[in-house]
Amino acid sequence: MKAEVYWHTGQIDKENRQQRNNHNSFVIWFTGLSGSGKSTLANAVEKELFDTDHNVVTLDGDNIRHGLCSDLGFSENDRHENIRRIGEVAKLFVESGSIVLAAFVSPYEEDREQIRNLLNDGEFYEVFCDCDLKVCESRDPKGIYKRARKGEIANFTGISAPYESPSNPDIRINSAEQTIEEEVDMVMQLLNTRNLISV
Amino acid sequence: MKAEVYWHTGQIDKENRQQRNNHNSFVIWFTGLSGSGKSTLANAVEKELFDTDHNVVTLDGDNIRHGLCSDLGFSENDRHENIRRIGEVAKLFVESGSIVLAAFVSPYEEDREQIRNLLNDGEFYEVFCDCDLKVCESRDPKGIYKRARKGEIANFTGISAPYESPSNPDIRINSAEQTIEEEVDMVMQLLNTRNLISV
Repeated sequence: MKAEVYWHTGQIDKENRQQRNNHNSFVIWFTGLSGSGKSTLANAVEKELFDTDHNVVTLDGDNIRHGLCSDLGFSENDRHENIRRIGEVAKLFVESGSIVLAAFVSPYEEDREQIRNLLNDGEFYEVFCDCDLKVCESRDPKGIYKRARKGEIANFTGISAPYESPSNPDIRINSAEQTIEEEVDMVMQLLNTRNLISV
Repeated sequence: MKAEVYWHTGQIDKENRQQRNNHNSFVIWFTGLSGSGKSTLANAVEKELFDTDHNVVTLDGDNIRHGLCSDLGFSENDRHENIRRIGEVAKLFVESGSIVLAAFVSPYEEDREQIRNLLNDGEFYEVFCDCDLKVCESRDPKGIYKRARKGEIANFTGISAPYESPSNPDIRINSAEQTIEEEVDMVMQLLNTRNLISV
């Protein structure tokens, strides 16, 4: 018992971490169709933030779908559970003092709201990668739209499953009309305007 | 496509993060019965590492069972899934450059081995909090042993569910015989001996 009392006051909390890191910790959530440029933008923002000495991590399909959520498919229920888990992991990273860049199709507004509610005020920012389906489909780097059109992939967002656009995103990006540098600038401007970082 | 090629080489990886943090990233896994002092030790090590300028995070029942794994119970299957998810989250933190202190009963050797295998060589260290059941039960800060003895909690490790001791832990701790300061010293010595930190 002595030890518990002793260490109780010594525990490191989120504020200690933010203070040492010299920046807030929060989530930037990139949502949009497959091929809309979410991961490309998240990676570019990650580099910008890392190079200016921020603690930053990117969560996306590459490091989540093959690991934490490898047991889940793409049914509506599994999509909800996928996003729920990502939200919980994002929260752990925010508690640890990191800026989290989360790039996921996340087609349901309800799921995105759930994550906003899971976090404190000022810890969730939504970036809508608003790119026309035709453009996304013409990019199709992994050939998945082609397969979805053939019916080889079920529940494919934009083709055979719905995408609910954010009603009030913090930023709206269109990768068909903007350069990546312009997109990064918009995100950095948001963070500066809200006093979340000190660049 | 231009953007993708452009950012491909710019992506921040684990080595970049370790280099900037000036320490390795890895998992210290604390296993042992409820009441054996896992979280107390993990919190004390966290403070020591944080105060010496390391990126460190603690994962334990408090921040996992109510969040990421709130859908899971304590059946054998759910315990496996619980530990699997924790392993995947720990890996994400290691990729992000953090030292992870994971404090979980984790009664099955197979599960702990699975996490070791999920990580690279030199990224997993096992601390066995080897405290006699009688001592753990006499501490019983949350009264859960009492409830388990009454049969109010099913599948309780040490009472009605098995605990498989680590066959070859990196450190063996006994919180009934050592002070918390001695325990922390043992962990720090391990990290220094293996050249994982630069304190």
